[in-house]
Amino acid sequence: MNELQESPERTDLRLVRGERTRKLITRHAADVASLEGLSGLSIGRLATDLGLSKSGVATLFGTKEKLQLATVEAAREAFLDEVVRPVAATPRGAERLRALTERWIAYASAPLFPGGCFWAANLPDFDSRPGPVRDALVQQHEAWLSLLADELRHAAGAQQIAAADADLTAFQLNAVLHATNTALRLGDTQAADKARRIVDGLLTTA
Amino acid sequence: MNELQESPERTDLRLVRGERTRKLITRHAADVASLEGLSGLSIGRLATDLGLSKSGVATLFGTKEKLQLATVEAAREAFLDEVVRPVAATPRGAERLRALTERWIAYASAPLFPGGCFWAANLPDFDSRPGPVRDALVQQHEAWLSLLADELRHAAGAQQIAAADADLTAFQLNAVLHATNTALRLGDTQAADKARRIVDGLLTTA
Repeated sequence: MNELQESPERTDLRLVRGERTRKLITRHAADVASLEGLSGLSIGRLATDLGLSKSGVATLFGTKEKLQLATVEAAREAFLDEVVRPVAATPRGAERLRALTERWIAYASAPLFPGGCFWAANLPDFDSRPGPVRDALVQQHEAWLSLLADELRHAAGAQQIAAADADLTAFQLNAVLHATNTALRLGDTQAADKARRIVDGLLTTA
Repeated sequence: MNELQESPERTDLRLVRGERTRKLITRHAADVASLEGLSGLSIGRLATDLGLSKSGVATLFGTKEKLQLATVEAAREAFLDEVVRPVAATPRGAERLRALTERWIAYASAPLFPGGCFWAANLPDFDSRPGPVRDALVQQHEAWLSLLADELRHAAGAQQIAAADADLTAFQLNAVLHATNTALRLGDTQAADKARRIVDGLLTTA
């Protein structure tokens, strides 16, 4: 082997290390963006926070927009791990919707990101900034609404809840969860209880 | 009269002019903050936008925090003029709540501020920044919830709607309006219709 060539093993190791560093950076970036917004992200600031070289971070992401997109994707992964994947074993329909509500309240209360819900923090900012970052946020928001509507349709089909417009109820359910996130951020100690009572009302058989 | 003293008339005129300029600046600042947030406001930027001298604007407001507080107050005044005051002649209870909903949808659709609802744009940012600006935003948010709850109590008392926890229904009603604002910003053409159908469901006699 020519000494100037790298062994395949060494290249793999570098790729793995790069991937780990990327994850470390984007997960931290999601925390920062939950507090200060995706527009507040900068390669320099993240490098300083994490004790990495600015040029190293710049090499991994290239542009600020690519960093923002990678951060949005990291937030989605963390949200799926925290809220959606843990309920996969819960029976579909009303039971899973209640489980999702509890996971969501924990996600916003604990909270997973220091600024609370990542989308509640960033959609109001990016809704007036057309481009790939807005598109990614909107797509994730719509996927979440679809997930709720699918479970609502299942619950109505199984006569666990009254038949209703599933998309409309999903809109309402998500509205309540987002308002709960705001109330939690503003120190409303009754917020989680309010959310549970409203969701109970939405999941009735009447 | 000593020539170095100003006449009372001239002083009054200056005060009036100063007050008008303040209003011009804070109303424009509310527009900017609906898009870019209150933290994005700067005395220099507002002066440039409006063709005023930076030192003149600085004299009127002093600090950035005072400018932010005056902007929050200007947003409240504009909101009251657009949403709350026009329904003062509408009979109290369910009818006034429907009128408020229509005014609110128009406020978020038209929209009064280019970035949509001022509080939806700024609460998610300021909820993690303790201080007088956050306190003013929270106080206004709570005043709006109280107004809704008062009308709901009136509607239930007059048997226009089913008796329910008025504070909880107010929380839900506001949640739907805020989600409608988000949906409008994201280009959902059904958003206003969804809001009306959900509010109809909340204001039933059953």
